[in-house]
Amino acid sequence: MKYQHAPRGWNSWDCYGASVTEEIVRKNAAYMAEHLRQYGWEYIVVDIQWYEPTADSHTYHPFAPLCMDAYGRLQPAENRFPSAAGGKGFAPLAAYVHSLGLKFGIHIMRGIPRQAVHQNLPVFGTDITAREIAKTDSICMWNTDNYGIDPTKQGARAYYDSIFRMYADWGVDYIKCDDIAREFPHAKEEMQMLSDALHDCGREMLLSLSPGPAPVEQAEFLKSVANMWRITDDFWDQWALLYAMFERAEKWCIHTGANRWPDADMLPVGAILQDYGKENRTKFTTDEQMTMMTLWSIFRSPLMIGGELTMLDDFTTSLLTNERILAMHEKARHAHPLWRRNIAGNEIIAWAAASTTGESYLALFDCGELPCELTLSSDDLEMERITAAENLWTGARAAVQDTLAVSLQPHSAAVFALR
Amino acid sequence: MKYQHAPRGWNSWDCYGASVTEEIVRKNAAYMAEHLRQYGWEYIVVDIQWYEPTADSHTYHPFAPLCMDAYGRLQPAENRFPSAAGGKGFAPLAAYVHSLGLKFGIHIMRGIPRQAVHQNLPVFGTDITAREIAKTDSICMWNTDNYGIDPTKQGARAYYDSIFRMYADWGVDYIKCDDIAREFPHAKEEMQMLSDALHDCGREMLLSLSPGPAPVEQAEFLKSVANMWRITDDFWDQWALLYAMFERAEKWCIHTGANRWPDADMLPVGAILQDYGKENRTKFTTDEQMTMMTLWSIFRSPLMIGGELTMLDDFTTSLLTNERILAMHEKARHAHPLWRRNIAGNEIIAWAAASTTGESYLALFDCGELPCELTLSSDDLEMERITAAENLWTGARAAVQDTLAVSLQPHSAAVFALR
Amino acid sequence: MKYQHAPRGWNSWDCYGASVTEEIVRKNAAYMAEHLRQYGWEYIVVDIQWYEPTADSHTYHPFAPLCMDAYGRLQPAENRFPSAAGGKGFAPLAAYVHSLGLKFGIHIMRGIPRQAVHQNLPVFGTDITAREIAKTDSICMWNTDNYGIDPTKQGARAYYDSIFRMYADWGVDYIKCDDIAREFPHAKEEMQMLSDALHDCGREMLLSLSPGPAPVEQAEFLKSVANMWRITDDFWDQWALLYAMFERAEKWCIHTGANRWPDADMLPVGAILQDYGKENRTKFTTDEQMTMMTLWSIFRSPLMIGGELTMLDDFTTSLLTNERILAMHEKARHAHPLWRRNIAGNEIIAWAAASTTGESYLALFDCGELPCELTLSSDDLEMERITAAENLWTGARAAVQDTLAVSLQPHSAAVFALR
Amino acid sequence: MKYQHAPRGWNSWDCYGASVTEEIVRKNAAYMAEHLRQYGWEYIVVDIQWYEPTADSHTYHPFAPLCMDAYGRLQPAENRFPSAAGGKGFAPLAAYVHSLGLKFGIHIMRGIPRQAVHQNLPVFGTDITAREIAKTDSICMWNTDNYGIDPTKQGARAYYDSIFRMYADWGVDYIKCDDIAREFPHAKEEMQMLSDALHDCGREMLLSLSPGPAPVEQAEFLKSVANMWRITDDFWDQWALLYAMFERAEKWCIHTGANRWPDADMLPVGAILQDYGKENRTKFTTDEQMTMMTLWSIFRSPLMIGGELTMLDDFTTSLLTNERILAMHEKARHAHPLWRRNIAGNEIIAWAAASTTGESYLALFDCGELPCELTLSSDDLEMERITAAENLWTGARAAVQDTLAVSLQPHSAAVFALR
Repeated sequence: MKYQHAPRGWNSWDCYGASVTEEIVRKNAAYMAEHLRQYGWEYIVVDIQWYEPTADSHTYHPFAPLCMDAYGRLQPAENRFPSAAGGKGFAPLAAYVHSLGLKFGIHIMRGIPRQAVHQNLPVFGTDITAREIAKTDSICMWNTDNYGIDPTKQGARAYYDSIFRMYADWGVDYIKCDDIAREFPHAKEEMQMLSDALHDCGREMLLSLSPGPAPVEQAEFLKSVANMWRITDDFWDQWALLYAMFERAEKWCIHTGANRWPDADMLPVGAILQDYGKENRTKFTTDEQMTMMTLWSIFRSPLMIGGELTMLDDFTTSLLTNERILAMHEKARHAHPLWRRNIAGNEIIAWAAASTTGESYLALFDCGELPCELTLSSDDLEMERITAAENLWTGARAAVQDTLAVSLQPHSAAVFALR
Repeated sequence: MKYQHAPRGWNSWDCYGASVTEEIVRKNAAYMAEHLRQYGWEYIVVDIQWYEPTADSHTYHPFAPLCMDAYGRLQPAENRFPSAAGGKGFAPLAAYVHSLGLKFGIHIMRGIPRQAVHQNLPVFGTDITAREIAKTDSICMWNTDNYGIDPTKQGARAYYDSIFRMYADWGVDYIKCDDIAREFPHAKEEMQMLSDALHDCGREMLLSLSPGPAPVEQAEFLKSVANMWRITDDFWDQWALLYAMFERAEKWCIHTGANRWPDADMLPVGAILQDYGKENRTKFTTDEQMTMMTLWSIFRSPLMIGGELTMLDDFTTSLLTNERILAMHEKARHAHPLWRRNIAGNEIIAWAAASTTGESYLALFDCGELPCELTLSSDDLEMERITAAENLWTGARAAVQDTLAVSLQPHSAAVFALR
Repeated sequence: MKYQHAPRGWNSWDCYGASVTEEIVRKNAAYMAEHLRQYGWEYIVVDIQWYEPTADSHTYHPFAPLCMDAYGRLQPAENRFPSAAGGKGFAPLAAYVHSLGLKFGIHIMRGIPRQAVHQNLPVFGTDITAREIAKTDSICMWNTDNYGIDPTKQGARAYYDSIFRMYADWGVDYIKCDDIAREFPHAKEEMQMLSDALHDCGREMLLSLSPGPAPVEQAEFLKSVANMWRITDDFWDQWALLYAMFERAEKWCIHTGANRWPDADMLPVGAILQDYGKENRTKFTTDEQMTMMTLWSIFRSPLMIGGELTMLDDFTTSLLTNERILAMHEKARHAHPLWRRNIAGNEIIAWAAASTTGESYLALFDCGELPCELTLSSDDLEMERITAAENLWTGARAAVQDTLAVSLQPHSAAVFALR
Repeated sequence: MKYQHAPRGWNSWDCYGASVTEEIVRKNAAYMAEHLRQYGWEYIVVDIQWYEPTADSHTYHPFAPLCMDAYGRLQPAENRFPSAAGGKGFAPLAAYVHSLGLKFGIHIMRGIPRQAVHQNLPVFGTDITAREIAKTDSICMWNTDNYGIDPTKQGARAYYDSIFRMYADWGVDYIKCDDIAREFPHAKEEMQMLSDALHDCGREMLLSLSPGPAPVEQAEFLKSVANMWRITDDFWDQWALLYAMFERAEKWCIHTGANRWPDADMLPVGAILQDYGKENRTKFTTDEQMTMMTLWSIFRSPLMIGGELTMLDDFTTSLLTNERILAMHEKARHAHPLWRRNIAGNEIIAWAAASTTGESYLALFDCGELPCELTLSSDDLEMERITAAENLWTGARAAVQDTLAVSLQPHSAAVFALR
């Protein structure tokens, strides 16, 4: 699949947890098509437990009965996704999303439903049963839906083939598989089975692996099986988590690009309607949000919006539609941290990248608690000389002579295209 | 419960794995009553998966349907235990064992049947359901029968109460609970719940915890909740495993006694009719069996015979009925290793113990591959002087003058009562 | 060497650090001979840096010039030990100590003086030089006197032979070698060289290794090379250190006896005239001192008094001369902790031992902060029955019927001989 | 100091160990000036123990007397460096090297000579003595020359100041300090003292820290105190060491540039006259040498020739003077590994970098044991499109259309400038 930039989209998790509905998905898709598509935002992703009829929050109901066909394949709960009635699965919803010029993604759990195993259901198109391929010692630590699949069993891949072909029939473009990205070594062979089943299913889809932190020692393997993998556990709107992402991005920066994207997780911006917390708006300051968007973009992380799109405010819209920042998200190459320095009591972090257009990108982050004035030489920036600087957030351009002067507020970022 | 010595009995696992039947149990009980009871052997224990109708070997059938009452309490499979018909459970078999002057034990798995959880069965005598108390991230790594019970859930102990009261009604004297003794820290509170349920059930029973190795750091806790706990993974008839037991016994020796017994596991002697292996007789030499019986006895481990009793040969009978060795199993106090020395190319291990009768016990083990002649002084043996030595295996008595001369064959033991 | 009990004596460290003088040693020896010898106290030990003329406290003077003969053998500083004048070394002082019916010990550091190495002095009686056998990467982390000796070098043992023969000529009875007991694996071969040199020097001496904690995994090796080895770093008069000794003693208890003594370190009792601290008397309460003396005695640790003997007060004298406690220090066998229990909010620790006289010893320690009343059954104490109890500290005897009632104050101990 | 590229030079270690002489240094300097200087090679470095008169090989003489002035400052051994006679130190030799248009470097050990400490010499220009600032527990594990300096002592830096001012007087341009780069945390403050003393000495010098591996967690600190630091232990002409450098370079690649160079160590090429080994020529094949030179250059490691310059053969000369490779060593930016892939049974490693001239560099390495044909797309190479490729080793240029075909021999490299 030819890519232009790391995937950009919207995912239902931050706002709706396990309980998103078709109505919400359609509403957000329509908004994206009208307001964000022209900026490269295109994925609409239904997150976890769309097959659980009683889901009502971010909290799972352990051992709740799941909607499932006669072959142990989970189906959208019709009370939540009415268009799935009559065994049509997500096909109607995917068709709607496609009709808007967008792409459609779903979340799955690694493995096979425990219900299918205990009922010993047959695997579609085979004479294998669920009980024969379930891995007896493999469960998710935080969700009771599935057992893992045992790669040593004959026909182990058959169940994954059966679901990926169904997803292909539905028109799915993106699979976010959970309980897997950090589960080394025991789930490594399941990642390979997933990848193989996806490639043989007859439809191009992106494969995204969660949750992190995926181990960097497995970078080459992950690049060979998936398009995205989380480098962190769930990310929320807290400065400590944002600050920690600098270290994670540093570890992974040499591995990004070419349709293989280390994933810094969703952007908790705008209205986050999560059920556990009284605050409905992101707790990040505007400076912190620009810091996040700068780091994610120079690092070329996938960008998945967590806020309810129909409630986007002007600032958040400007954050997500700055064309210069989004161009860096597309054009940056070889990004990496240049240094971390203590300057006047603040930790200042600098990142640099080349660009496919011949410029150099430079991002500066004030991770301290004080404002800071910086004067940086070409040596500080690993450049031979500097003649011009464009501020990507503001668009301001200036001629410079080998010295760049920058003012930073606490937790803020500045980012430039330098010549 | 007043004890005389660590429990002695027979357990079905070594010979019959998951597939023992009532007929076999009765036959072994009858043999024990007639031939072994007078030597203190008294427990008859039905090991794992008596509730699995299709069990046919040491190998489990993952996710197989289990016999269970309407409250999620497992019941003997009637095709294997006919006297259980009509909901009588193990009561008839226990009554038979009691009628022989013996005691009756059963094996259970930690937790609550997965089938009860997925069916959301009620817990007997409560308005709690199985789904409400199952611990979502707690499974056994090698058996699919149960989920663990979550001690943080309201009414968590109710299921354990419900089964222990049923076992009390049946007349059970001994519970061997599996998937628990080494499962620290996550199963620690389940051990406490088990112990509390047992103490409140209205009948005295011994509680035995498996499999090992239990962590020695938890010795005081284990002494507070159980009567026996395994200090090793399953023990079989291999010299390497027997040799390793010296180190395990060394770690645990200061913690044994007073009805709290670190457990070195079963004695794989005589006819071991296990299904996975062509050899039907123990692979231990007679010297090795005497080494094992000597170590287990001075260490005061529980003694559970693994071989089929009705096929006992003369040597094995003599091994199990030596009155001087069994007296040491009862009378030894403060046993511990004295030293490990390299003598003429062999590792010789010495253990010493006091006796409630005023003698000192001394056991010597040749763990090397060569015969060895030892001449030991009173200093070597931590005694002020030595005037008489009785060889416990042979009964030979000798006057000595502060020096003990001993000949050992490879893998053999000698053990003395010294004055 | 035939032993009766673990060594008992006095050591100059607690009071005088690196700066003890002959006058002080003679004064303490005379006092011991007159007041303590009849209780088995017999060793007088001169601790570290008797060869450093300017030593004046517990603090070392790095790289200070040391008194040394032409063969790199350290000699007593004559300004501190006048009788050493004329090259007589410690021979006159040892003769004096022997004249009192006592034994004489000295402290040494592992290795060979750095001064001898840098000056490349010859090793006595050989054509080897100091530079040839010094281990280039082996120094003490806290003292600059010596380099280690490299066991791979030809003639490595020659220096140790040269000093042990000199010590034998002087009449030394006890060597406390420092910077060695916990220095595994790199100093293991030096321990062997030390032991071999001692055994070949022509005089019986005890070998004591410091500082701890020696690793319990090396127990058999230590038993083969030394008579005593420290199980702890330096011990001082603080409850936290005393409490920690219960765990150390538990780890080592099965390894004590027969002239091989795990060593819990000196008794900081009475007047401790150390230079760094304003308190001149032990900070232990009388209860804590009895706890210490009880644990050291049932565990059979060496007993080395740290206080200035000529300033002994009545309580301390009674502590050190209780004949029943000292009998236990001699007669106990197979001592070990029985249990640690939380009783009424206190941690109560019980130790048991057999006795060569047929009784059982029982020690009870209240390690909590509250008084505690205990009522213990024969089962609690691993006994078949109890008919009589003698309180070892008070001498009170009582008939009992299988139940022992004991009152304990915080940090106090009670200890009984039971029949 | 303005830099063009990472330092390039010659160092005496590989050929001469601890025993290089002035004659050898002059001969190599003259050769470099005539044949290599125009390619950017400029440093002539005298490695370890130039102050040891009896040094005769790569093996040190432990505790050997060293040449030293009255202030504990080591001086060149006049029997090896005659121009140092009369207390002139390295000034005459440095002047000669400068007269050739080259720069002069020397090796030092962290710390202060043990001889100065044991003799308690004064520190030049102060009233401090060596004994007062030596760190008592700090030695080198493999060389007995020095003690470390204790940063907590008053006047600790004075000795470093005294030697750096002497080096500045001599005209030294480059200090390679040993026993320090991997010695965290205990030598961290000594690195700071070294750096501070160097910056205050009145002459610009490069500071190089050895041996590795320096810990990557200390990257920012190392960038703040030194110009180069070793990322590996000593590197020699063995494929296993060369292969391992890919991983080390991967860890460090984001930290190189701007006069702060992670150092992959010397180039063992040409005639390596080392005393321990029968082979006098590098054991690397020509392919392996080109692999090494390619990796060192794209990674921008310092380049220090280990072979005797006057014996350079034609191949080695061509290896060291390829202008396109040396341009990459200067112009590469943001270099990093792209991927490691198993292709037809070989591990193929790809590295990419931007260039200050607008091209992209691509290096391909066959780390397997078989030849390999590669066909790579623009996506494989993280490029938008590819239109032209210049083979840097051969100079061959070719037009391409988004696909690059490459043949590789085992252990060989190919490297391109792509447009």
